[in-house]
Amino acid sequence: MISQQQMKQAMQAYIDAFNRVDPDAIVALYAQDASVEDPVGTTPKVGSKAIADFYAYAIKSGAKLKLAAPIRGSHGNSAAMAFDVELNMPQGDKLARAVIRVIDVMTFDEAGKFSSMRAFWGSSDMEVLGPA
Amino acid sequence: MISQQQMKQAMQAYIDAFNRVDPDAIVALYAQDASVEDPVGTTPKVGSKAIADFYAYAIKSGAKLKLAAPIRGSHGNSAAMAFDVELNMPQGDKLARAVIRVIDVMTFDEAGKFSSMRAFWGSSDMEVLGPA
Repeated sequence: MISQQQMKQAMQAYIDAFNRVDPDAIVALYAQDASVEDPVGTTPKVGSKAIADFYAYAIKSGAKLKLAAPIRGSHGNSAAMAFDVELNMPQGDKLARAVIRVIDVMTFDEAGKFSSMRAFWGSSDMEVLGPA
Repeated sequence: MISQQQMKQAMQAYIDAFNRVDPDAIVALYAQDASVEDPVGTTPKVGSKAIADFYAYAIKSGAKLKLAAPIRGSHGNSAAMAFDVELNMPQGDKLARAVIRVIDVMTFDEAGKFSSMRAFWGSSDMEVLGPA
């Protein structure tokens, strides 16, 4: 089984790849048949192509991810992390600084790739902070 | 469907009940046939009796829960929260202050009760802080 340390390193690599605008590195963290349910409660994206399309769009927004607390492991093949997505979003005809507060849960396959990702956030987890 | 607001209030009520040492109030937040997988990767406790036994033990430890970041909702019937468990644990023949860093994911039934709880934490999420 993949170690807690390996899982936490992969989660950190995900944050780092997102923030340096490297969608290929993010997709490479996922297994080819992985699923991404972001946000939880919507239809999962399944497979490398759908996942690549999703991140191409998400990263183009200019959003940056900042850990809100240390990454958590588990006694199994899962890990979880709380982070803030900092981004600019349209507010009327202007852009506003905003934050989306998220918790991601990843499960891992034997090769140490993400087999699933579920992102917990709802409309009440978005907050407009002020003018961009 | 239960609202994001209701889910977050129930998560906060869980923290508050734990901290005022009120195991009955915790059990009352759960559906009768709920499951508790704490930590993730171990066999779930299922049903009110098993859940009551689990919390009676956990609360007796004197542990206190402190949110590490705001509670997250979702677009479905789930919510998640990152928190620190502050407790005294045996360290040789003395007690030491320690913290366990946890993320809980709850799913909710139609009545607004927890239908499942999964607690993400591993041995690498425990840290001894110093003498008690």
